[in-house]
Amino acid sequence: MSDLIQARILKGFRDFLPEQEIERALLIEKLTATFRLFGFVPIDTPALEYSEILLRKSDGETEKQVFRFEDNGGRDVSLRFDLTVPFARFVAEHKAELYFPFKRYHIAKVWRGEKPQAGRYREFVQCDFDIVGSDSASVDFEILALMKTALDSIGVSAVTIKVSHRGIFNRFLANRGLTAKSEDILRTVDKRGKIGTEETGRLLEELAGAENARVILDYIQCEPVTGTERIEQFSRTLEKIERLAGGPAADTARLRDIHNFMKARGIAASYVLDPSITRGLDYYTGVVYETFLDELPSIGSVCSGGRYDNLAGLYMKEQVSGVGSSIGLDRLIAGLEQLRGNSPQPGKASFTEVTVFCQSAESLPLYHSLAAAFHRAGISCEVFPEAKKMAQQYAWAEKKTIRWGILASDDGQTVQLKNLSNRDSFDVTIVDAIKKIQDSRSTPAT
Amino acid sequence: MSDLIQARILKGFRDFLPEQEIERALLIEKLTATFRLFGFVPIDTPALEYSEILLRKSDGETEKQVFRFEDNGGRDVSLRFDLTVPFARFVAEHKAELYFPFKRYHIAKVWRGEKPQAGRYREFVQCDFDIVGSDSASVDFEILALMKTALDSIGVSAVTIKVSHRGIFNRFLANRGLTAKSEDILRTVDKRGKIGTEETGRLLEELAGAENARVILDYIQCEPVTGTERIEQFSRTLEKIERLAGGPAADTARLRDIHNFMKARGIAASYVLDPSITRGLDYYTGVVYETFLDELPSIGSVCSGGRYDNLAGLYMKEQVSGVGSSIGLDRLIAGLEQLRGNSPQPGKASFTEVTVFCQSAESLPLYHSLAAAFHRAGISCEVFPEAKKMAQQYAWAEKKTIRWGILASDDGQTVQLKNLSNRDSFDVTIVDAIKKIQDSRSTPAT
Repeated sequence: MSDLIQARILKGFRDFLPEQEIERALLIEKLTATFRLFGFVPIDTPALEYSEILLRKSDGETEKQVFRFEDNGGRDVSLRFDLTVPFARFVAEHKAELYFPFKRYHIAKVWRGEKPQAGRYREFVQCDFDIVGSDSASVDFEILALMKTALDSIGVSAVTIKVSHRGIFNRFLANRGLTAKSEDILRTVDKRGKIGTEETGRLLEELAGAENARVILDYIQCEPVTGTERIEQFSRTLEKIERLAGGPAADTARLRDIHNFMKARGIAASYVLDPSITRGLDYYTGVVYETFLDELPSIGSVCSGGRYDNLAGLYMKEQVSGVGSSIGLDRLIAGLEQLRGNSPQPGKASFTEVTVFCQSAESLPLYHSLAAAFHRAGISCEVFPEAKKMAQQYAWAEKKTIRWGILASDDGQTVQLKNLSNRDSFDVTIVDAIKKIQDSRSTPAT
Repeated sequence: MSDLIQARILKGFRDFLPEQEIERALLIEKLTATFRLFGFVPIDTPALEYSEILLRKSDGETEKQVFRFEDNGGRDVSLRFDLTVPFARFVAEHKAELYFPFKRYHIAKVWRGEKPQAGRYREFVQCDFDIVGSDSASVDFEILALMKTALDSIGVSAVTIKVSHRGIFNRFLANRGLTAKSEDILRTVDKRGKIGTEETGRLLEELAGAENARVILDYIQCEPVTGTERIEQFSRTLEKIERLAGGPAADTARLRDIHNFMKARGIAASYVLDPSITRGLDYYTGVVYETFLDELPSIGSVCSGGRYDNLAGLYMKEQVSGVGSSIGLDRLIAGLEQLRGNSPQPGKASFTEVTVFCQSAESLPLYHSLAAAFHRAGISCEVFPEAKKMAQQYAWAEKKTIRWGILASDDGQTVQLKNLSNRDSFDVTIVDAIKKIQDSRSTPAT
């Protein structure tokens, strides 16, 4: 006993038990289907890269969080901490093999040595989708439409997608002679959600004086409206910030085009123009956006992104403009769990539809031939492998949330099909059992 | 320019371009569906674990290959090099939350600092499936049946699955007084595929004397038979090794049960009893198996496994017996590529079924409303975002292997639907376009 090792996992890392992993897998499958519906293709890149590649552009904060080490060949390597930097390296390395506009999705793990806290882990799944090689309003819009459709596809429809444009904000600041202070102002505006409008105003006053603070607060003001009122809000707010930025220009025309595409697709009521969204000090240069759960805005944005001028500029001379967004899947799942709260939906513990119970080990060949018939019909089936007590076999089936059970007799002509949720049973041929199970798929277990 | 970083990937690591990643994703989706059909559930474990957990049982060879380092918190951590050791830790840590027999699949990346060579990479995907908590012939058989069904599901049907039993071999060696030399003998037998029967015989003679060498060669002899002859071969070979091992016992009864289940399921012709299969010095204790591509046996086993007595013995007192197998997906893909050779199947470069061409930027709202209609009908569609030359738009659609194109006129009543493979075109309503595209799914593009 003394040489047992305690089975333990690293702090900030998690195992996924079947019920959790099934939930995550089904969400990923639905997101994948939606990405493909919009013409996005998958790519993959290594989890490990040269540190020089991954860390060159990062701030000190990222560097502190990254898992970085020297490999056995003496190379300085790091685990990727996002999917954007590897994508930039990928585009630079494979530009001759790609076609532009290039739309890719990438759903994969990333690692950060963050301080673990609720909903924050050191290993988590990111779902990124980007379009590179086109600086058109059309692809800005496609990302925004895809965000809404993707979240709808996983049942997350009560969301507010807040849109803004960094270029207009910069023009507004220039117009007021505040360009030199733009970093500090952006940082302050970004904090408003946390510190409140009053404190934001006070900080802005310190930075830029009372009059500027008042006008900045006016600029970032966003009326709280819902439903189709948002269509009018978008237009009205756009007119306001256009005026404050010094009049019409390509950036405001861009937002107007995007809004027209939203109206043409019939989804404009899902978007709010919120000029306070700036994505802080990120590398964005055009449209930016964040997405909040209407019932739980406090967990922060579950899907954010924007347009960047020069994705792969560190790695190649050619400039590739792009636009993209990222769903923080694990944070989203944590949010959904919190929303379910005390009335948890019964989870799916397996995909098994029917189990063939083992009443006698001698009959296992028969049980396996029945399982083969179910498998051929596309029905998920497993044979209980040992002649244990029936109570134990039933308990096992219940834990796996299996709906149907088969008790077979050796004549092999008919079987007893049991609805395990209410113990109703039917003497049927295997053909009828297959039909009954298939027919039951559209109705929930009772 | 001087501060450009050369975009380069670590040696032994790979990017997956869309066409390759689509192939891999589709294979994984088919394998996943088959695992679920057999009642297996997914789990996930971290890529990083305490080195103490991962490396305790390993031989020096593994230790040299593992990516091991000290994290920022001073912990000695490693990237997982297989999915079996983390599964053992998982079972020990969560045994109270699991139900047995427990069937899990896990498709994920693992990392080994191996010398890169054809089909061998430092990052690769493993597909593991195991059943733990039952030491019955029924679950031994389920793994074997699943191996065949899973490979069938990805179109890899020309395979030979070679089955054997380590217990019978051990009994045979004991029966001849060779137990003390069993490690060396196993190692030698395992090399037969590489060094040939003659050289194997010579080495065995050195190890155990001429008479023993002759009997060992007789024991491991496996007649080359195909198709249904294999059913007879299995029984005959089983009788022979049973006799050489000293008569009937639980181990030979186990193989006989498994063979009966194969016959009951109607799949016995896919398996060969090959007593030379021992899985070398692995931790297997019961049935063992390897799978070879009939047309390319030289790349080695693409799906191997067996029964182990005590999966999680390093981490807990309770003994959990299990049986499992693993598909080396990347090696399998490399093999399939090699088989396709000079007549490559045209790959799928995207999932897009139809593209709406951009004849005029002013009409983009119309194009996006058409795309919305296709999306609602479940048809993968994308809008070309800029009014570039039509030749350029056609070339882009061709690279993405998109079958259909739409040229829309501003009246919005009818569209021109173009079959991009032969440039046939049809003036249709959007409803008819949807129907035509859906109907075309069952026939390949010409």
